[in-house]
Amino acid sequence: MKTELQKLEDGEWYYFLDPAVAARKARAAKLCQEFNAIPATDPDAQTAKIKEIFGSYGKNISVQATFNCDYGKNIHVGDDFLTNYNLIILDIAPVTIGNHVMIGPNTGIYTVNHPMTAKGRRQYLGKGSPVTIGNDVWIGGSVTILPGVTIGNNVVVGAGAVVTKDVPDNTLVAGVPAKPIKKLAVE
Amino acid sequence: MKTELQKLEDGEWYYFLDPAVAARKARAAKLCQEFNAIPATDPDAQTAKIKEIFGSYGKNISVQATFNCDYGKNIHVGDDFLTNYNLIILDIAPVTIGNHVMIGPNTGIYTVNHPMTAKGRRQYLGKGSPVTIGNDVWIGGSVTILPGVTIGNNVVVGAGAVVTKDVPDNTLVAGVPAKPIKKLAVE
Amino acid sequence: MKTELQKLEDGEWYYFLDPAVAARKARAAKLCQEFNAIPATDPDAQTAKIKEIFGSYGKNISVQATFNCDYGKNIHVGDDFLTNYNLIILDIAPVTIGNHVMIGPNTGIYTVNHPMTAKGRRQYLGKGSPVTIGNDVWIGGSVTILPGVTIGNNVVVGAGAVVTKDVPDNTLVAGVPAKPIKKLAVE
Repeated sequence: MKTELQKLEDGEWYYFLDPAVAARKARAAKLCQEFNAIPATDPDAQTAKIKEIFGSYGKNISVQATFNCDYGKNIHVGDDFLTNYNLIILDIAPVTIGNHVMIGPNTGIYTVNHPMTAKGRRQYLGKGSPVTIGNDVWIGGSVTILPGVTIGNNVVVGAGAVVTKDVPDNTLVAGVPAKPIKKLAVE
Repeated sequence: MKTELQKLEDGEWYYFLDPAVAARKARAAKLCQEFNAIPATDPDAQTAKIKEIFGSYGKNISVQATFNCDYGKNIHVGDDFLTNYNLIILDIAPVTIGNHVMIGPNTGIYTVNHPMTAKGRRQYLGKGSPVTIGNDVWIGGSVTILPGVTIGNNVVVGAGAVVTKDVPDNTLVAGVPAKPIKKLAVE
Repeated sequence: MKTELQKLEDGEWYYFLDPAVAARKARAAKLCQEFNAIPATDPDAQTAKIKEIFGSYGKNISVQATFNCDYGKNIHVGDDFLTNYNLIILDIAPVTIGNHVMIGPNTGIYTVNHPMTAKGRRQYLGKGSPVTIGNDVWIGGSVTILPGVTIGNNVVVGAGAVVTKDVPDNTLVAGVPAKPIKKLAVE
């Protein structure tokens, strides 16, 4: 018999009011609140707190407050990670991000879905689907990335895009839903 | 002779710099600031403050900070109401929400319009149109809901949608502007 | 030999981790944090702080917290300037706003771009393009305005729009990307 947390981690429907599941979110909300209260004049303290929040990280990471997440430990970022104001990552499932990635302000990365039936939603069910982002990706401001999406290497996501499908390498996407606008040079 | 507040409540053009109107917003901003400062480790205090802000509420309501609104007393929610980070409700007119409703992060519900003429806007005029949301509705992240919209029962609004028109029962909508994507089963 | 700050100011590619460039952002983040911490019950203190942040301003300006920006001194607003919750202005390049302008919640005005090549982005390059907004403009909630955009006089930008191109005078635009919906009367 699986616990709700095991179901969550196995990508199955889980009961999100389960105390062990809710405790993860409460911990994340608390740590993010602490992060967001650190004076902007103390970037070392900000980075130390982010390292406490994230699951793993490379060299040269810089997260601008405010930042909020669902768990934190499911966020894995590579080297040279830079984000701007008001990034929200709902990391029920893993959010794995490569090297040299920049993310603009007001952006949301979401990994959790709920049932398409009222009956299912009344049971407070959630289900996680990982988001994977490659190397050398620039995600513009006010972008929304949906559960299950994989973004390749050398990708630019235009500001305001809603990314509902995978994005291949070397591509600029934009729009709602995001569509390929052009291929990007490899250099 | 109606006061500006009476005009506001009657859904007529009102002068939004009127002291009685501005006092409502100032009160709401203050209460939301207090709500947003409550430690995430104290959900009981958060819920108590939300109950002070909202006009009416059912059982089992949970609002994640940050939350902001224009008045608060025009927000009426049913049982089992759950929201995520950075919800903004501009409740100049009533925002009436049924039972079993979940709202994702970075979402905005707006009930106020301004004139389409420069002359009218220079007079600082606003006009409210209510937003009504039925039972068993899941509003995804980064969604925008416009003044006057009614959303039926058993509805899912896809992440990133901008809802400009009424949404019938048992429907999934998505996109900008939001359009019906498919009918949802009733179960 | 230009400094990175001179390149930034000349609208050329600049190295955004340069200490003098980074110091601007750190100063802005600190001042915005101070602004966002002012009690909503003290609008005079809020306005005084905004005047410390902005490059220039007219009469009757009111900015609702939270507000965030990249520099502040590149923001120039006219008379009768009103904004709502969670406005983000990335003012690497000048953001020049006329008289009688209202901006809705969750809106982002961005003036900075990065290279379309991975190689360029690995060098931490940015380039500013000014945003200019005319008189008598109402920008709705959850709007995104991209670098280099000029918005004319007597314009309404519908909620949720992503403005990628210039907008002529006397026009209502909406959508992603924003397109003209109708001409507005001049009165």
